[in-house]
Amino acid sequence: MSLKLTILGCHSATPRTSAHPTSQLLEIQNRHFLIDCGEGTQVQLRKYKIKFSKIKHIFISHLHGDHVFGLIGLISTFRLLNRDTKLHVYGPRGIKEFIVTQLRLSQSFAGYPIEFHELTSDKSELIYEDKKVEIYTIPLSHRIYTNGFLFKEKIGERKLNISAIKKHAEIEICDYQNLKNGRDYTLENGETIPNKNLTHNPSKPLSYAFCSDTSYKENIVPFIKNVDLLYHETTFLNDKKDLAKTTKHSTTKQAAKIAKLANVSKLIIGHYSSRYKDIEPFKTEAREIFLNTELAVEGLTFEL
Amino acid sequence: MSLKLTILGCHSATPRTSAHPTSQLLEIQNRHFLIDCGEGTQVQLRKYKIKFSKIKHIFISHLHGDHVFGLIGLISTFRLLNRDTKLHVYGPRGIKEFIVTQLRLSQSFAGYPIEFHELTSDKSELIYEDKKVEIYTIPLSHRIYTNGFLFKEKIGERKLNISAIKKHAEIEICDYQNLKNGRDYTLENGETIPNKNLTHNPSKPLSYAFCSDTSYKENIVPFIKNVDLLYHETTFLNDKKDLAKTTKHSTTKQAAKIAKLANVSKLIIGHYSSRYKDIEPFKTEAREIFLNTELAVEGLTFEL
Repeated sequence: MSLKLTILGCHSATPRTSAHPTSQLLEIQNRHFLIDCGEGTQVQLRKYKIKFSKIKHIFISHLHGDHVFGLIGLISTFRLLNRDTKLHVYGPRGIKEFIVTQLRLSQSFAGYPIEFHELTSDKSELIYEDKKVEIYTIPLSHRIYTNGFLFKEKIGERKLNISAIKKHAEIEICDYQNLKNGRDYTLENGETIPNKNLTHNPSKPLSYAFCSDTSYKENIVPFIKNVDLLYHETTFLNDKKDLAKTTKHSTTKQAAKIAKLANVSKLIIGHYSSRYKDIEPFKTEAREIFLNTELAVEGLTFEL
Repeated sequence: MSLKLTILGCHSATPRTSAHPTSQLLEIQNRHFLIDCGEGTQVQLRKYKIKFSKIKHIFISHLHGDHVFGLIGLISTFRLLNRDTKLHVYGPRGIKEFIVTQLRLSQSFAGYPIEFHELTSDKSELIYEDKKVEIYTIPLSHRIYTNGFLFKEKIGERKLNISAIKKHAEIEICDYQNLKNGRDYTLENGETIPNKNLTHNPSKPLSYAFCSDTSYKENIVPFIKNVDLLYHETTFLNDKKDLAKTTKHSTTKQAAKIAKLANVSKLIIGHYSSRYKDIEPFKTEAREIFLNTELAVEGLTFEL
């Protein structure tokens, strides 16, 4: 079980020389998921030496520019790099027209298959699943249709207790998969050994929740309950809570309160408004409510 | 008369950490014209400390991503900076749909007037004119409909020859504008003094031609004849001339030949393919044919 989050961009609105709009790369169970894709994301991927070919799934929270304007460039670059593997793009209804219109007018083509998964539900839904990972939407509340995303490892196989197994010479290697799957073992003498006597519990599955952009919304708490890592936007410090309300964003204290209510292990905050030259006060304010808070910083990785 | 060209990006195809796609800012007669707008152009404008509010006219050569993917971001940022002055965008038919679709799907609006001037002609045409500057298209030959742009100062007023004027006490300051306009002066005694005895010739008007992307095309020579400054793409060195032909780009030697045929004063080359780590050979090759050749380099300015 492992999870690694790389912050590619963590600022709101306009890209600047050293402040890029939202994008993150999540590595979980050796899958690489790109979350949001503001202008310049492909350059940030190069800067942090992330192989483009590893990205097979892109998740777009909403269609505001600072979360999506880099997508067409990345899709075009994939083609120039001779990509042939399929790309899945998950995002609000309209994401397909957004990209396809630009490809058509530039007389370009992707050159590899792209499947758009357009989201329209205002309820949480399972949008991706394989044998090790599942991904759910988290309906957020912003000025435009927006989803967060919950990435969860599935409970893994039970772990072999080799020293216990070795006490029974008749248990062979070909029996191990059954044990990992949780089955009891019946000896030749008819005696049944309970699985728990031959295995250990699997590692705790890890989970990551991405919530940006959104106003303060307690309804999301059940979806993100007990996650290991929560990214929640904090566009504003607490003194701008009225502005946060108007623009449907969150403050430091609101994000921290959500983290506390959801009993998450760690909170990462970001999506800082460009009005703030110093982001340290974001940490100070959030920690007053939720101590295990860290600032998103470009290039920073969080590993579990 | 003055002309200043700032290279914001001069590489082809994909943006990289230190290689940005095409964009240039031309300052001529205190007008600021942005030419092409690849992804990241707005960050380059900030890097080179160019005031966004000065840009009132943007010229897009063609709709390939490395010349236009930064436009939607720049247009959005103008709004966030509370722009209220009109923006004129000149580009191929489709440029309006390209931008408007993205604004619609992101439920955004410019917040200031934008006038799109969609170009369709395959002949050179006057697309902008004011009392000091005129701008013409230069039809180019690429894989998609593409124009270069010719920026020309108009011939200015004649310059007063103050020492000659002072010899005639009856010529007053209120007569000066007529002299600048080229009129002769008739003294009270009926004698006419020819204008050329009272004025000097105006400064030579300056001109700049931007030609990218294009295959080798001698037909453009009449349009760019004798310009002071010519930017002509050189995506490839001479050894890739077959690839240049296939992809409808130019080589160093082809750009230099165009410069020589057109008798321009100075040639700037750029739009380098990412396959070249060292761009010095571009200069060496081009100078074999046209000595006054300079490399485009990000942040570099050319002043006349």
